[in-house]
Amino acid sequence: MALKPATRDKLQTVSTATITTALFKRGFRNQMIQGALPLRPGKPTMVGEAYTLRYMPAREDRNPISVFQNRAHPQRKAVEECPVGAVFVIDSRKDPRAASAGAILATRLQVRSVAGIVTDGGFRDTAEIAALVMPSYHVRPAAPTNLTCHEAIDINVPIGCGDAPVFPGDVIVGDDDGCVVIPAELADVIADEAADMTLFEAFVTEKVKEGRSILGLYPATDPQSNVDFESWRATRDR
Amino acid sequence: MALKPATRDKLQTVSTATITTALFKRGFRNQMIQGALPLRPGKPTMVGEAYTLRYMPAREDRNPISVFQNRAHPQRKAVEECPVGAVFVIDSRKDPRAASAGAILATRLQVRSVAGIVTDGGFRDTAEIAALVMPSYHVRPAAPTNLTCHEAIDINVPIGCGDAPVFPGDVIVGDDDGCVVIPAELADVIADEAADMTLFEAFVTEKVKEGRSILGLYPATDPQSNVDFESWRATRDR
Amino acid sequence: MALKPATRDKLQTVSTATITTALFKRGFRNQMIQGALPLRPGKPTMVGEAYTLRYMPAREDRNPISVFQNRAHPQRKAVEECPVGAVFVIDSRKDPRAASAGAILATRLQVRSVAGIVTDGGFRDTAEIAALVMPSYHVRPAAPTNLTCHEAIDINVPIGCGDAPVFPGDVIVGDDDGCVVIPAELADVIADEAADMTLFEAFVTEKVKEGRSILGLYPATDPQSNVDFESWRATRDR
Amino acid sequence: MALKPATRDKLQTVSTATITTALFKRGFRNQMIQGALPLRPGKPTMVGEAYTLRYMPAREDRNPISVFQNRAHPQRKAVEECPVGAVFVIDSRKDPRAASAGAILATRLQVRSVAGIVTDGGFRDTAEIAALVMPSYHVRPAAPTNLTCHEAIDINVPIGCGDAPVFPGDVIVGDDDGCVVIPAELADVIADEAADMTLFEAFVTEKVKEGRSILGLYPATDPQSNVDFESWRATRDR
Amino acid sequence: MALKPATRDKLQTVSTATITTALFKRGFRNQMIQGALPLRPGKPTMVGEAYTLRYMPAREDRNPISVFQNRAHPQRKAVEECPVGAVFVIDSRKDPRAASAGAILATRLQVRSVAGIVTDGGFRDTAEIAALVMPSYHVRPAAPTNLTCHEAIDINVPIGCGDAPVFPGDVIVGDDDGCVVIPAELADVIADEAADMTLFEAFVTEKVKEGRSILGLYPATDPQSNVDFESWRATRDR
Amino acid sequence: MALKPATRDKLQTVSTATITTALFKRGFRNQMIQGALPLRPGKPTMVGEAYTLRYMPAREDRNPISVFQNRAHPQRKAVEECPVGAVFVIDSRKDPRAASAGAILATRLQVRSVAGIVTDGGFRDTAEIAALVMPSYHVRPAAPTNLTCHEAIDINVPIGCGDAPVFPGDVIVGDDDGCVVIPAELADVIADEAADMTLFEAFVTEKVKEGRSILGLYPATDPQSNVDFESWRATRDR
Repeated sequence: MALKPATRDKLQTVSTATITTALFKRGFRNQMIQGALPLRPGKPTMVGEAYTLRYMPAREDRNPISVFQNRAHPQRKAVEECPVGAVFVIDSRKDPRAASAGAILATRLQVRSVAGIVTDGGFRDTAEIAALVMPSYHVRPAAPTNLTCHEAIDINVPIGCGDAPVFPGDVIVGDDDGCVVIPAELADVIADEAADMTLFEAFVTEKVKEGRSILGLYPATDPQSNVDFESWRATRDR
Repeated sequence: MALKPATRDKLQTVSTATITTALFKRGFRNQMIQGALPLRPGKPTMVGEAYTLRYMPAREDRNPISVFQNRAHPQRKAVEECPVGAVFVIDSRKDPRAASAGAILATRLQVRSVAGIVTDGGFRDTAEIAALVMPSYHVRPAAPTNLTCHEAIDINVPIGCGDAPVFPGDVIVGDDDGCVVIPAELADVIADEAADMTLFEAFVTEKVKEGRSILGLYPATDPQSNVDFESWRATRDR
Repeated sequence: MALKPATRDKLQTVSTATITTALFKRGFRNQMIQGALPLRPGKPTMVGEAYTLRYMPAREDRNPISVFQNRAHPQRKAVEECPVGAVFVIDSRKDPRAASAGAILATRLQVRSVAGIVTDGGFRDTAEIAALVMPSYHVRPAAPTNLTCHEAIDINVPIGCGDAPVFPGDVIVGDDDGCVVIPAELADVIADEAADMTLFEAFVTEKVKEGRSILGLYPATDPQSNVDFESWRATRDR
Repeated sequence: MALKPATRDKLQTVSTATITTALFKRGFRNQMIQGALPLRPGKPTMVGEAYTLRYMPAREDRNPISVFQNRAHPQRKAVEECPVGAVFVIDSRKDPRAASAGAILATRLQVRSVAGIVTDGGFRDTAEIAALVMPSYHVRPAAPTNLTCHEAIDINVPIGCGDAPVFPGDVIVGDDDGCVVIPAELADVIADEAADMTLFEAFVTEKVKEGRSILGLYPATDPQSNVDFESWRATRDR
Repeated sequence: MALKPATRDKLQTVSTATITTALFKRGFRNQMIQGALPLRPGKPTMVGEAYTLRYMPAREDRNPISVFQNRAHPQRKAVEECPVGAVFVIDSRKDPRAASAGAILATRLQVRSVAGIVTDGGFRDTAEIAALVMPSYHVRPAAPTNLTCHEAIDINVPIGCGDAPVFPGDVIVGDDDGCVVIPAELADVIADEAADMTLFEAFVTEKVKEGRSILGLYPATDPQSNVDFESWRATRDR
Repeated sequence: MALKPATRDKLQTVSTATITTALFKRGFRNQMIQGALPLRPGKPTMVGEAYTLRYMPAREDRNPISVFQNRAHPQRKAVEECPVGAVFVIDSRKDPRAASAGAILATRLQVRSVAGIVTDGGFRDTAEIAALVMPSYHVRPAAPTNLTCHEAIDINVPIGCGDAPVFPGDVIVGDDDGCVVIPAELADVIADEAADMTLFEAFVTEKVKEGRSILGLYPATDPQSNVDFESWRATRDR
């Protein structure tokens, strides 16, 4: 179930806050990747299907520095195979004591037109990764090589990331509040609903800035609020 | 016991660091709201009397999205009733997994001339809240709606916030180091003492920048330090 | 074993990420000071030998505010005795509830040409410390005076800082990823190896930006990669 | 809505595990008091309606030892007013650094025929409290007087305890796995369903001990399992 | 590489403390499953090859109670397929807020002659599981059904458990100190070395009880210590 | 300032709860060693002067297994030099991932008539240590050798243990609630006051068991309570 371009476009205009509310209405309470924040806030909203990497705790004998000489090493292989437009999501078991990845790999992902990179651990070379156009999310900087704590063990399997369930193909949306995981089959409907909510919230924000009370306006329990919204929308669409 | 304008003015010129020291001298060791930091550092110092909101853990059947249609919902009611010049302080039980509030409510508070907003949880829509003139303090961004984890249960009762005791009417002061809680009845005396300390520390900083040792200067155990301070003060006051 | 100027210079051009990898190759997995991050990212790389201060939990009767009137108080003494070019490293037992130090002391350290200051707790007056030229690293702001939680008890003894072992004279290097501790006797060899790695990584980054795959390039298991590197280096050195 | 004797009796025969499953089927995911465990395992199941005490962080000037001379002090008042058969539930903000209560108060509660005592902090005098007939639940022992960290501020208001929502009158059930909170209005239906599930699980356990596979048996997707259960139940009821 | 009966027997006579030391000598620092302790201390030492179950965070729509009606549900399937003599090891992402398993499944494992069960989360029905002959290890009791927080997603893949790497077939040894993971290919050599160390430590303990200093005895740097050990061993073997 | 035999005797009859209250009255809020609990509850109260060992994080090259061949290794030296009747207190930086000590060392301490052993980390060989007559306190079992995480660096210096300040010679008292640190110079007065409080609490407990309300009794604000106490004491002393 590929992410439709129209859905991707819509999701790029809505916030993770609005999406989590739309998910909450459908019974999803646990889709926010907890603790992962943008290395550099203020970049455009990140949208893409999840492509995952699973780390497990590193065992010393299996993880000497020479392991990267193996072209099939899952971390390196994943960086080369992550699809264009996807979000690279790493299960680092919430452990930022060693890096999930560094600037060279992140740069490679950007060159390969990956949409973004997310870990519930930390990145190294954070100054360089932050400076990329591609958005990136982590818990905190982590200079030590991943081999210190992590062994890349699986590519594109279901994982946990920041206590959220992530299945390959789920749609990841990231902004300055962090990243939310939309179950793949709900991406279209959530995008539609979130776009509608976003429009309404733009109206509400405008009215609040003009001095109106939130009571009866947000939500619009006062019938006049809906009338005003419809007329605002009509004006705006013209 | 209302906060006097002169006291508010004085507190706006002193730091939370200085205030905690003045409180420490009187036996208060626990008045700093631990973990809550400014969404955007560098704003003017926040000063205001505490107006509180208490959250408890959310129970699913009591917290559907429709709950906000109730104009008496404590979160919404509190936003409309928080006094001008007060600081809106939220007890989120140090849980930033779901939002304490979002941009629309924060904007409404600013429009209503509230002095600032503080939670020991997290806010959603953080880019917009950070961009407000009104200062805001939290632990980390939290996109999910508060209903996911929190139920607003009490308005303007004594609470804990970041492990500090907060009574309605206590004076909250916030700067880039975070927020301190001054017991209401001590606001005047603490403001006076902190202003004096601030003046002395400005003198010390100037001398340190000129190359003087801190020994005998800070604190001024060397009598010459006091002489110098008095003459510095005299010059400065002219 | 003093830090050689040439070694200091080399270390100023390499990253903590690269250094931790060089240390990892020699069996060191625990030299990163976990959790301490720059108050203001983007400053030049900090390099210097560790000069340490050990805090223990404060006992109320031993730590009234008057204690600083004692010129031999270890915190104040250490600030005056920390050698030029050293890094002042504080063992705050990972407790940022009270300050490890404030702006006046940090300013004095800068005036005394200390290379930087690091704690696994927090600083107060963070806006002023961040504005100094001298780099500074902590966990989070901590306004309350150190006496609230910490008693300075030992100067220049071996300590733990952010779960890393720090011996006086070890070489501390700090950048936006945080601070790494190089055992004193390894500083020269690590500096050499890290400088070589840095050069190679600059080459790799350039190739990755040009679109080359990381497979066979990083590490250079493809013989052509080494040929290319040598020719790139030759060009660059000219 | 008083707890019916028949419901109390049923709940005394079922486990917290079974109750949480019955609650889960109705959409409740957060009713377990996390982290509070029996001081002495193996006592009979505790059942009673919640009577609550809310602590907030202690402020030094409000909490000298003399405060207990006030007969209206909420902690002491609550101990004397907690109804017969109720469970005394304390919101200690998950902080076991100071005691929620000690042996004298626990003994008084037992004498007053209170059903049990629960805190998400810790008790002092744990050897004596454990030796009482009345069951007790906490996180870990905490010798220091509650005044060190806690101020009792409210009696019988809605609270959080171990991240679970607790409303006065909710039914608390405790066994060796800990304590679960049943919303008051669901106590009867949950008791009925849990009793049924308990009977079925007794049957399943017996069959498993006899060597039967859990597949088709638990749950009873194999029709024969239901037949066997009905005949087992018939035999058992005779 | 099957676990040899002789190796199993030897491992049953040595402690996890001794095994971790033997592993430490070979460069393994991270093989202890951190935080998982016996539900009932004092049972015979548990030894068996790891058979693993991997949980990920639960998504509400995928984890209704009806999911167990599927005979292929990984949790249930794993319980029926775990080999005789193996240890069932569960990666619960160190989250004990919901159960990893309960008494019926644990009983089934015992009936199927599984050697033991380990999770870095918690079990429900702990009184019954503790009463089994089969040893069990967890972090703390967790009454809520696993569906609340966990989805069983993979059987017998490499996992992390309590921050230790566990590969299927690794040998798990558990005693009152917890569980250690011996890489499969090292089981024989570690068993031999640990058995030797155990013998020596029995000698040392006897001598210490007789009043001898540990200096020169433990380790046996004093040549006489080795002489004494050899003669003690000779006597003992007779 | 040696611990007087009479003071030691008195302290053996009072609880840590009572002692912390006596300390609280004198302004000490932080003398409880947080998190360290008895390996086996129910042993006689432990009393002795603190003899300390300080651990720092282990550096791999300094901590091979061969390090114990050095008779001057601080851990081994400390075990041989800890005075008769003292309590061996270890600063393990609250890290129980590796052992603070094991059964052989604990046995040696018992043979040497040390009063007890306390760490804010964990012990290995816990079944054997628990079985000793000598009381022992830790956070949780920790099988791996201390060399994995800890390097013993200092003997009998001031340390932190479980967030409490411990100076050599302070008096440590331990019971089932944990361990409290009495500043050396206060041992006599605290012992006297705690003994008095203990007597009064025995009276209160007896009255509470007889059915009396705590109001007016505990504390004895009702004059009759004091009359009753005096007559109870008179009877008891006869």
